[in-house]
Amino acid sequence: MAGNSFGTLFKLTTFGESHGTAIGGVIDGCPAGISLNLDKIQEELDKRRPGQSAIVTQRKEPDTVEFLSGIFEGKTTGTPIGFVIRNANQKSNDYSHIKDAYRPSHADYTYDEKYGVRDYRGGGRSSARETASRVVGGAIAKQLIPEISFITYTASVGDIRLEKDYKDIDFNLIESNPVRCPDPALAEKMEAYIREIRSQGDTVGGTVKCVIKNMPKGLGEPVFDKLHAQLGKAMLSINAVKGFEIGSGFEGTKLKGSQHNDLFNPDGSTVTNLSGGVQGGISNGMDIYFSVAFKPVATIMQKQQTINSKGEEVEIQGKGRHDPCVVPRAVPIVEAMAALVIADFWLQNKISKI
Amino acid sequence: MAGNSFGTLFKLTTFGESHGTAIGGVIDGCPAGISLNLDKIQEELDKRRPGQSAIVTQRKEPDTVEFLSGIFEGKTTGTPIGFVIRNANQKSNDYSHIKDAYRPSHADYTYDEKYGVRDYRGGGRSSARETASRVVGGAIAKQLIPEISFITYTASVGDIRLEKDYKDIDFNLIESNPVRCPDPALAEKMEAYIREIRSQGDTVGGTVKCVIKNMPKGLGEPVFDKLHAQLGKAMLSINAVKGFEIGSGFEGTKLKGSQHNDLFNPDGSTVTNLSGGVQGGISNGMDIYFSVAFKPVATIMQKQQTINSKGEEVEIQGKGRHDPCVVPRAVPIVEAMAALVIADFWLQNKISKI
Amino acid sequence: MAGNSFGTLFKLTTFGESHGTAIGGVIDGCPAGISLNLDKIQEELDKRRPGQSAIVTQRKEPDTVEFLSGIFEGKTTGTPIGFVIRNANQKSNDYSHIKDAYRPSHADYTYDEKYGVRDYRGGGRSSARETASRVVGGAIAKQLIPEISFITYTASVGDIRLEKDYKDIDFNLIESNPVRCPDPALAEKMEAYIREIRSQGDTVGGTVKCVIKNMPKGLGEPVFDKLHAQLGKAMLSINAVKGFEIGSGFEGTKLKGSQHNDLFNPDGSTVTNLSGGVQGGISNGMDIYFSVAFKPVATIMQKQQTINSKGEEVEIQGKGRHDPCVVPRAVPIVEAMAALVIADFWLQNKISKI
Amino acid sequence: MAGNSFGTLFKLTTFGESHGTAIGGVIDGCPAGISLNLDKIQEELDKRRPGQSAIVTQRKEPDTVEFLSGIFEGKTTGTPIGFVIRNANQKSNDYSHIKDAYRPSHADYTYDEKYGVRDYRGGGRSSARETASRVVGGAIAKQLIPEISFITYTASVGDIRLEKDYKDIDFNLIESNPVRCPDPALAEKMEAYIREIRSQGDTVGGTVKCVIKNMPKGLGEPVFDKLHAQLGKAMLSINAVKGFEIGSGFEGTKLKGSQHNDLFNPDGSTVTNLSGGVQGGISNGMDIYFSVAFKPVATIMQKQQTINSKGEEVEIQGKGRHDPCVVPRAVPIVEAMAALVIADFWLQNKISKI
Repeated sequence: MAGNSFGTLFKLTTFGESHGTAIGGVIDGCPAGISLNLDKIQEELDKRRPGQSAIVTQRKEPDTVEFLSGIFEGKTTGTPIGFVIRNANQKSNDYSHIKDAYRPSHADYTYDEKYGVRDYRGGGRSSARETASRVVGGAIAKQLIPEISFITYTASVGDIRLEKDYKDIDFNLIESNPVRCPDPALAEKMEAYIREIRSQGDTVGGTVKCVIKNMPKGLGEPVFDKLHAQLGKAMLSINAVKGFEIGSGFEGTKLKGSQHNDLFNPDGSTVTNLSGGVQGGISNGMDIYFSVAFKPVATIMQKQQTINSKGEEVEIQGKGRHDPCVVPRAVPIVEAMAALVIADFWLQNKISKI
Repeated sequence: MAGNSFGTLFKLTTFGESHGTAIGGVIDGCPAGISLNLDKIQEELDKRRPGQSAIVTQRKEPDTVEFLSGIFEGKTTGTPIGFVIRNANQKSNDYSHIKDAYRPSHADYTYDEKYGVRDYRGGGRSSARETASRVVGGAIAKQLIPEISFITYTASVGDIRLEKDYKDIDFNLIESNPVRCPDPALAEKMEAYIREIRSQGDTVGGTVKCVIKNMPKGLGEPVFDKLHAQLGKAMLSINAVKGFEIGSGFEGTKLKGSQHNDLFNPDGSTVTNLSGGVQGGISNGMDIYFSVAFKPVATIMQKQQTINSKGEEVEIQGKGRHDPCVVPRAVPIVEAMAALVIADFWLQNKISKI
Repeated sequence: MAGNSFGTLFKLTTFGESHGTAIGGVIDGCPAGISLNLDKIQEELDKRRPGQSAIVTQRKEPDTVEFLSGIFEGKTTGTPIGFVIRNANQKSNDYSHIKDAYRPSHADYTYDEKYGVRDYRGGGRSSARETASRVVGGAIAKQLIPEISFITYTASVGDIRLEKDYKDIDFNLIESNPVRCPDPALAEKMEAYIREIRSQGDTVGGTVKCVIKNMPKGLGEPVFDKLHAQLGKAMLSINAVKGFEIGSGFEGTKLKGSQHNDLFNPDGSTVTNLSGGVQGGISNGMDIYFSVAFKPVATIMQKQQTINSKGEEVEIQGKGRHDPCVVPRAVPIVEAMAALVIADFWLQNKISKI
Repeated sequence: MAGNSFGTLFKLTTFGESHGTAIGGVIDGCPAGISLNLDKIQEELDKRRPGQSAIVTQRKEPDTVEFLSGIFEGKTTGTPIGFVIRNANQKSNDYSHIKDAYRPSHADYTYDEKYGVRDYRGGGRSSARETASRVVGGAIAKQLIPEISFITYTASVGDIRLEKDYKDIDFNLIESNPVRCPDPALAEKMEAYIREIRSQGDTVGGTVKCVIKNMPKGLGEPVFDKLHAQLGKAMLSINAVKGFEIGSGFEGTKLKGSQHNDLFNPDGSTVTNLSGGVQGGISNGMDIYFSVAFKPVATIMQKQQTINSKGEEVEIQGKGRHDPCVVPRAVPIVEAMAALVIADFWLQNKISKI
């Protein structure tokens, strides 16, 4: 109950600190009989991996997942799937400078207040390194529901924003550039901006969009576990996320009902889709689409005044190799969390009626 | 597990359809020994009540809560608190016109797809009437943590937006007008706009803001149950909500880290509070503030083309007495959900260290 | 999380004190589309009802269940089923003598230690009156899985014991006598003994046996939620229960493996069934059978020395109308809890493989 | 939700098959700040280890636990404690003979029915090897509540039974013999009997008793999560367990209330303790004591007729190195599960009143 599990029936529990022995997780509730493609899982991890391009952190972490249980002769057996990702790169001396100092807008201070003790190396449990375990979980979730497609991309970096509707986007272009923005011209601008920001020792935020296509109808459990409520929680649980909106989102609040209502076609589909594929917390079979807001990374390569655990003022400066913009590597994490949510509701919906 | 419970330790389970016998709920996990002020609970309900002003639905529902258990001689006993709110106003003939027709952007279609059966009267379980039970739960949650203040208000109606920072707002003015906007001049404009919209048989959306003051440090459970992730889920589970942002939110994505980081004061408070009182998913003792986006109400008093359960095209028109704008009555619901989240984490945090 | 819910997918939450306004409950997770026979539910309640025969408590409680939600036009809708049973007989002055005194082997002392406050009237929440809500839940569970049969009977009262194997018993005779023992001659002895015990102002214990026939294979979730582990918890959660055994139980510990192993027939059934229908925590399709031990009722009509909340010695004597032997009325409660367990695992098993 | 987690606040999730890469687990909800003695954890594991004496299985498994997270500089950090125990001894060719055959009274048949696929090597997930992870969890639970003592011993092997009340037993003698029976003379008989049974290629059952001393008052959550209900579930979830009784248990059903009631001493303790330390599902501060029934091990070194997955009759014979009696090695497992239950309720009780 201490917050390290996600999901109701398809349930991922993760463990591990940034610079401990290993991170990993357990998936309980994955049905038996799924032929798992382990290479595909590693591929998803590679999309999240540090050092994958020039604009992300240059840390060297191979992030190889080892499965310990729950898979036999290539298939899931219905028993829990345990896995670990060893921490290859434990240079904990990198972190002596923050042993006692609280980095601004990091979790150092709040962890100390909550727990009275803290593994300060690389942020410990509060490090986004934990999200590698989510990517493993999400990659397995996808293989449970292969008919559903998840498309995720960078929609903005700082002020540079992809304004196009997702329907006008060629999703094949997402992986054509390291920013993961499906508009190559814009991607170039974003990349240049990230390089500039990095040269200033600074960081920048951005937004990620996700589209889920070929959705079954009926997913989502009213009233508290509405599909988009659980999606929102999933996204807001990712490091650095400060906002979530689905369908018409904040812009939709300005509209009138007569403009906003999605009228039906005779086949039950809707003419418009301002609802974002969810009505009353339940999927209606239309595309789900949502946006996730990432604040700028808190670790900057500039001197900052801060305090230590005694309340004394000290000066710190980011060391090591950090992301100037988290968005390109956040894309696979957003997608993994979306897959975990949908797979879980897909299972739950199997027993909604007899 | 079918989504009608909220919370981990302080847990509210609700039941009831709009036009059934009663709605109600059970709170399990409320500690013993709290002197409950039942009048205050009813007062919160009255803030949500239909017919409270000229700009909300004119339905007559007294919404009187009856407590059935868990309270003895004015105090909580640690046993579950059961309560019911009878449905006084069961004019189910009002709803024969939607028995077979699917109202656009309502949950009629998705409930039928999911369950194969549906109590169509007034939306049944999908009706926002269910939120009355949340208000009861939230009102009790507040009495568990009386030192923490919740302030909630209307921040926009359609395009009319209160731009002021919450720190410059006189919260005493919130209840000075039926819109619950703490800027009287703006509130008048909003009210006029809602009247105009209603005269068109239309509806409009808006946003609600909530500020939580005097927050203890350490609330929130990493990694999946981050404080703002659970807040986000709570808000997105409210009918008609399409977006949530905390602290700097979507605007913060445009900033640089050097602009966004909240530097520390020697006492552990921060100079700025772009984080919105949460760092690493845990409260840091600063004010929490967040925004919630409500789409326009789907029921409009205009003719709409739609389909019935056989896929035939039919025409419907809203009947009865509906809200032209849900935001004024959503204010107490947002606040109740916030209180449920904070009370739950407050209990959870009691056992985070020995 | 405070212990008032039972089940994972088919989940019953109960509330209510013996002498409060009402007891009741909420069932969440009941699939939509079940045609509920409400009369049958009331019939089960009537089997548990006080005053049903000369050998049980003579309290007058009609125990009429009122359903508040979740059922529409005779069918479950997939939404939570709320229900209440009003407490008709609130003679709370009956209990002034135990307001401060702790009745031996009751929960008065432990509730006070745990909660610091207690509704002392009739035992409050610790009263077996709460089990009426379980009977409602169990009666609905049975209608979800009508193909499975539950047979429950009194197997012993004090030293008087039905030694026959359940296969040699005519289950039609269970309801032929107020003891609910399917051996009429033995039932007469039991009844006479209960009358004698009552005339002494004393009480006596006994055992209840339950047989579940036509069991599907595959129910039960390893490793912690084994079918018989959950059955055991269900039974041990009933007031006054001190023991549980399934299949060969305690006697089986004396056997050798060569005697105890259940050899297979070619169709997968087993020649013997010492396992009691469960192997590795999962049903194998054979009959499930188990025994439940009930201690003698703690309330006796004799003077007992005890202490009050100040630690002073006081004398008390049972007042009112109590059961001299709880076993006859425990039969429907055992059966209800068994049905809740099986229905829950039946749902869970629907998603164990794809 | 698929049954591989145990506990509400102090929650153990285990994974792993007998002959997979590793078994292990995650403990979520362990408070921060506990100085963990890792050697003591390994010592508990060693008590469960195969090959520890002449009367248990002679398999060589070092069962060394490796901690991966949640501990920093010797203390728990409040984050999840992940651990693995590598499977050193993966002779899977040992198991080709049962690849298709169903061993009588094992879980082979039921796993196949439930999941349609099964890791047949050594029983896979249904192997008692999984309980090593429970022992790790229990050993950590004990260090959370060091003031509470757990004493566990063998009370019977087959017909040979230790009749003494636990109060007349010198617990220091438990570890004086490989049977873990605190009566040396009886232990010798038990050991001789186990050797004899083994020489017959057979197995035998037995019972384990556990006493919990220095119990705090108030642990246990009514109504479904009664202390002894959860203890019962914990024990019944251990492989081969068929029965559980607490306090007076099945024998107590024969008594009258006037004999069975535990009268109070002025200090709130009771003169007798037939309740076994639990009243109304809540601990009263008296010793808790209970018995657990283990059936004879199903794997025997004799030829048995059985069937294969096609329903054909085949003959099998146990191979490898198995326990002729599981009871001596079950002692630490029973104790671990008891510790998990008590630690969890100890945490839950911290928030039962304000």
